[in-house]
Amino acid sequence: MPYRAPVRDLRFILEHVAGFARVAATPRFAEATPELADAILAEAGRIATDVIAPLNRAGDLNAARLENGAVVSSPGFAEGYRALAEGGWVGIAARPEHGGMGLPISLALAVDDMLSGACLALQLKPLLSKGQIEALEHHASDAMKALYLPKLTSGEWSGTMNLTEPQAGSDVGALRTKAEPLGDGTHAISGQKIFITWGDSDLVANVCHMVLARLPGAPEGTKGISLFMVPKFIPDAEGRPGARNSLRAVSLEHKLGIHGSPTCVMEYDGAKGWLVGEANKGMAAMFTMMNNARLSVGVQGVGVAEAALQQALAHAMERHQGATPLSAGGPILDHADVRRMLAAMRAEVFAARSIALSCAVAIDMARATGNPDWQARAALLTPIAKAHGTDIGCEVAHLGMQVQGGMGYIEETGAAQFARDVRITAIYEGTNGIQAMDLVGRKMADGGEAAFRLIDEVQRGAEAARTRYPDLAGEVWQASEALREATEALVAQPLNDRFAGAVPYLRAFARVLGGDAHLKAALADSDRLALARVMIRRILPEHAALLAQVREGAEGLYAVRPEDLAG
Amino acid sequence: MPYRAPVRDLRFILEHVAGFARVAATPRFAEATPELADAILAEAGRIATDVIAPLNRAGDLNAARLENGAVVSSPGFAEGYRALAEGGWVGIAARPEHGGMGLPISLALAVDDMLSGACLALQLKPLLSKGQIEALEHHASDAMKALYLPKLTSGEWSGTMNLTEPQAGSDVGALRTKAEPLGDGTHAISGQKIFITWGDSDLVANVCHMVLARLPGAPEGTKGISLFMVPKFIPDAEGRPGARNSLRAVSLEHKLGIHGSPTCVMEYDGAKGWLVGEANKGMAAMFTMMNNARLSVGVQGVGVAEAALQQALAHAMERHQGATPLSAGGPILDHADVRRMLAAMRAEVFAARSIALSCAVAIDMARATGNPDWQARAALLTPIAKAHGTDIGCEVAHLGMQVQGGMGYIEETGAAQFARDVRITAIYEGTNGIQAMDLVGRKMADGGEAAFRLIDEVQRGAEAARTRYPDLAGEVWQASEALREATEALVAQPLNDRFAGAVPYLRAFARVLGGDAHLKAALADSDRLALARVMIRRILPEHAALLAQVREGAEGLYAVRPEDLAG
Repeated sequence: MPYRAPVRDLRFILEHVAGFARVAATPRFAEATPELADAILAEAGRIATDVIAPLNRAGDLNAARLENGAVVSSPGFAEGYRALAEGGWVGIAARPEHGGMGLPISLALAVDDMLSGACLALQLKPLLSKGQIEALEHHASDAMKALYLPKLTSGEWSGTMNLTEPQAGSDVGALRTKAEPLGDGTHAISGQKIFITWGDSDLVANVCHMVLARLPGAPEGTKGISLFMVPKFIPDAEGRPGARNSLRAVSLEHKLGIHGSPTCVMEYDGAKGWLVGEANKGMAAMFTMMNNARLSVGVQGVGVAEAALQQALAHAMERHQGATPLSAGGPILDHADVRRMLAAMRAEVFAARSIALSCAVAIDMARATGNPDWQARAALLTPIAKAHGTDIGCEVAHLGMQVQGGMGYIEETGAAQFARDVRITAIYEGTNGIQAMDLVGRKMADGGEAAFRLIDEVQRGAEAARTRYPDLAGEVWQASEALREATEALVAQPLNDRFAGAVPYLRAFARVLGGDAHLKAALADSDRLALARVMIRRILPEHAALLAQVREGAEGLYAVRPEDLAG
Repeated sequence: MPYRAPVRDLRFILEHVAGFARVAATPRFAEATPELADAILAEAGRIATDVIAPLNRAGDLNAARLENGAVVSSPGFAEGYRALAEGGWVGIAARPEHGGMGLPISLALAVDDMLSGACLALQLKPLLSKGQIEALEHHASDAMKALYLPKLTSGEWSGTMNLTEPQAGSDVGALRTKAEPLGDGTHAISGQKIFITWGDSDLVANVCHMVLARLPGAPEGTKGISLFMVPKFIPDAEGRPGARNSLRAVSLEHKLGIHGSPTCVMEYDGAKGWLVGEANKGMAAMFTMMNNARLSVGVQGVGVAEAALQQALAHAMERHQGATPLSAGGPILDHADVRRMLAAMRAEVFAARSIALSCAVAIDMARATGNPDWQARAALLTPIAKAHGTDIGCEVAHLGMQVQGGMGYIEETGAAQFARDVRITAIYEGTNGIQAMDLVGRKMADGGEAAFRLIDEVQRGAEAARTRYPDLAGEVWQASEALREATEALVAQPLNDRFAGAVPYLRAFARVLGGDAHLKAALADSDRLALARVMIRRILPEHAALLAQVREGAEGLYAVRPEDLAG
């Protein structure tokens, strides 16, 4: 069965779980009426289903390649990208003054979800442009905005982000790329960057690289990093791409998946660059770009999980093996263990999607109202949405293969591609371990205030559901109370003890939020009750074991010596 | 770092966890002294490390291919296979009267572990021969034994097993391949078989296919299936391969992993076959072959996990990113979250390996003593060892990639290959769902007696450890008591309710056995205490949530309608 964009679930979650109505009620997003939102989702769903999804397998089989120093895209990607650009989807959240639609992140994220499920390798290209647009909107000079934003928003040009160097991955502060002032306000950028997604492209007239580099005499570490715009072709004042800049993609990586997305090693050899924002403040600017990109990566996980689930479900409804409890010749879907897997997959996708869209609503509310509570909510939910959405992406894709048995291992079915493609989402944009450390570190620097406020809300929701669904509401309440106690203990721990329990803590938090989302769903529509029971009675209980790990701290881990690990 | 066979851990587990001394104390295996066992492990470890492991990447990059209807193996596989055959490793457990070493399964399995970690794609080839040798030893006529066993044992010929057809996967009874008697005691075999591992090979002089087929007028389902020996070249009375039989590999599958192992679609077009065992009793004979193959697949998971762990550990000891809690410039191994992952990986590998070797000891004891309690123990542990060993294989390989961040996603590092290769082990030889259904169905047909006896043993072990490690012993005892209660509830459930909780039940059982294994290890060597704490305090607690799923039964799953799964 071909991929079908999950418009119905996205609408339902926006309305009944994430509280999108609050966004539409703000003056800033007054135009995002329910009717417009519906139209946006329907049209994006149509493009994802009809135009983008058919490209996914060809992108896997015919990887992007490097010819004479230039990237040649996978078959059909040019047409697919053109449809996205011409439909205005690159600029969906960009400001109207530069040609964008100016829509809320909530809607942009729902569109990301559908495009990721359709073809992750291609969706990455506009995604990076969107991050760059946002960074320029916040940090660039008016002249730079005027020059770059219209082209990026229209999709004529595209953007990249260049952080990683061979010795500087999670430790961005170790980067060495240099920026030498040329005296005319520009800089000569020199160095090597790796893992640059869509670092070159034949789908656009210009590729705009945002590059982190060091100015002469800059402080060591992250406080000495500046951000530069380094275009492939240097534009003239009217925005016509001119001279070729001294940069190139020197090689492409051979990756487990997303073969249609060229991952470049970039060489900058005195390339001309323009400072974005203030000197030595590049990390702050890059964080703008990365923060929302993290949330988008979270829904990449959700989107691929959706596609993997649909594909496995189609198989389970078509394939017959033995008598099932429901009939002599029924589909394998009717075997208890197959139904267990598919029910868990759907419950997980619903929960992870709800967390991501709730985070997006918090971002929109923070922007629309300036209320710091919304800002703190968004900051808290971002690492959870990223790490949990992508963990679930990997797990659901894995289950999708398992449902199909031997056929799941054969590449032609596509099940394996989902598992290969989605695997990167748990790694890039900050590994899921880094996300969890962000959650228990920076995001708990408030003493856990934002977390406790969210737990309070979950408990109020459980109280409200108690009359109708006493057992489910009780379990969500209890789990959130356990999370509260663990959070109280966590914020009292030294930082490295928190780090030791960071990943299980993040997952336990996501479990509670998943229970909350399903409870809300069942209250809004009793047809959602069966899946809510699967989440709350079968999946949520794992929070207890996860929180037990949080209490353990770091000591027991450091008692394991390297020689013990060698076996 | 290249793979290094885990001889030390295998020895330790055989001695201190699995109780191999009991096997060596039986008259049947009196020759398997500790000295011989050590020599066997050391020599197999040397071959795995020095000869086989170096072939792994080439096998991935240069898949086996079909040329003019014949399989051409990956580079170096011919030399690697020759080393295995000439070393006598194909016949390690085969009977001495046909040239085998006649060693216990416990030692053979330890060798499988090392060879799987070295190169899973190549290890599959002797593995299938070993299963065929065992089936022939039990079911073939003396003439057939005399003709085939010496050649299979020496590795000059190899074996395959042919069960699956497009419509008959988990439901073997649906197979349609026909066997027509030719009047001379032979049969004409016609039909198509899929997923035939090493269905053709240029490494041997003859390929011996064990094929399940139906005789004319045979009953429907599994009671009408017979087993046939169908050699590629028909041997003369002296065992010289003669006329080409009417069978061929018509195509190879494109798989996620194990590219060096050709997975064939086999076409039998009136091929000459010889009945093995009795007519219509083919499933029983095939089960002999499959039962121990299941256990071997379990250690394939463990073996690849070992390799993935070693590779990730080497990365974590070499890579530096930021200041760690232990030093300003230490390796990433010293970051709490990285150490958490690696400690979990090692604890899991140790536990899964212990379960597999304990199962092998039970098989050996059953053979050596004829005691039905050992037989029941082996039968109970086999599905746990298979499913848990391969689940852990997938999870550890996944963590191995995560430890390495972006580098883990790049094929050159080899981390992705481990994850791709090991994924099939959770599927073939009966999916892990089928294993779990076997555990809660057939293996609980005794009312849980074998399970309760094993739980009793675990609790006696915990009692014995209470003085020295009161907290750890207490947690293992409590967990096994929870498992006992869940087992009591399980055996009272209707079968389909058991099936609904089968996978979580199997995992919970493995968690308890893992805790038991680590407790034994810590008692034998206090250097093992730190890993035991990781297993018992951080991983074992998940049993509670798993057993909660077991109690849920099937009803809640069937309340989820297909349209709810569609989202």
